[in-house]
Amino acid sequence: MKKRIILGIDPGTNISGYGIVEKQNNNIEVKTYGIIDLRKQEDLYSKIKKLYDEVTKLIELYSPTELAIEAPFYGKNVQSMLKLGRAQGVAIIASLNFGMSITEYTPRKIKMAITGNGNASKEQVAMLLQSIVNKQLIIKQYDATDALAVAVCHCYQKKIGTNNNYYSDWKDFINKNPERKI
Amino acid sequence: MKKRIILGIDPGTNISGYGIVEKQNNNIEVKTYGIIDLRKQEDLYSKIKKLYDEVTKLIELYSPTELAIEAPFYGKNVQSMLKLGRAQGVAIIASLNFGMSITEYTPRKIKMAITGNGNASKEQVAMLLQSIVNKQLIIKQYDATDALAVAVCHCYQKKIGTNNNYYSDWKDFINKNPERKI
Repeated sequence: MKKRIILGIDPGTNISGYGIVEKQNNNIEVKTYGIIDLRKQEDLYSKIKKLYDEVTKLIELYSPTELAIEAPFYGKNVQSMLKLGRAQGVAIIASLNFGMSITEYTPRKIKMAITGNGNASKEQVAMLLQSIVNKQLIIKQYDATDALAVAVCHCYQKKIGTNNNYYSDWKDFINKNPERKI
Repeated sequence: MKKRIILGIDPGTNISGYGIVEKQNNNIEVKTYGIIDLRKQEDLYSKIKKLYDEVTKLIELYSPTELAIEAPFYGKNVQSMLKLGRAQGVAIIASLNFGMSITEYTPRKIKMAITGNGNASKEQVAMLLQSIVNKQLIIKQYDATDALAVAVCHCYQKKIGTNNNYYSDWKDFINKNPERKI
């Protein structure tokens, strides 16, 4: 099976998490993961610019061909959704500018894929992620592990590179991935 | 006074309007205006890519140094705000990639600047815009005239190129621009 390099992003206007994995056959290897800290940027526009530049750098460095992005369906309020939409848009266009495919996952979908429980805590996600990628992770940096989780979640999906949202059925997922049932 | 070239954008995921004006002393000249029609794009991501590419082309062609963007504070629902945020983010990053300054204006602020009435109709805005720019406009294309309106609105502001939101006081505006009172 062909090697795939996947960039996972958990976008935010203060902190964005990223995780890059390489998938070959059933092996998932963590290439890097961490945060893009935007809190020190003076204004909204330097945050947007830094986010774009950092995502671009990651793509240039690791050459992923697929973006898996965490995208909630709802938020606290319209203002926070507007800000989140801007951060998502920036991560998406940085990836599209390199011809990458885009797939979006809800937080619930990601938690289910990693832990089998859509309401799992961030700590549970991080702990189970360690055993999946067979690597000790810095599990207190949840923005980073969340981003790694969306990249790993994407590895489990059958339908890839469609450039469209999809949220496959959990039952269907279990049937196709019996080893993921815990 | 130095010549300024301003790009006005009214972003949307189906249709985005644009307008470019050149301001020198008290003269405002329309360089171009129109729409970026994204309705025929197959999916959300090709819409985002096309929006980015078209805004980039406009910047390369007309060399504006300031972006004035229409940005409502609220919307129908969180989903529409998320989509709008993405379109805004894409227009903003395209401009930031050319080192442009960014200023946001609410629809109400733009209507006030053009017509003196924050609740003016799109048609009223378009009609009054014609007399300001001294040019007959295609006034049925409201996405385009709205974008031109935000560029013209930006021409009237004293504080420019701060890379920050600001919404100046209407009274202050009238005092400084008595000719705009109708």
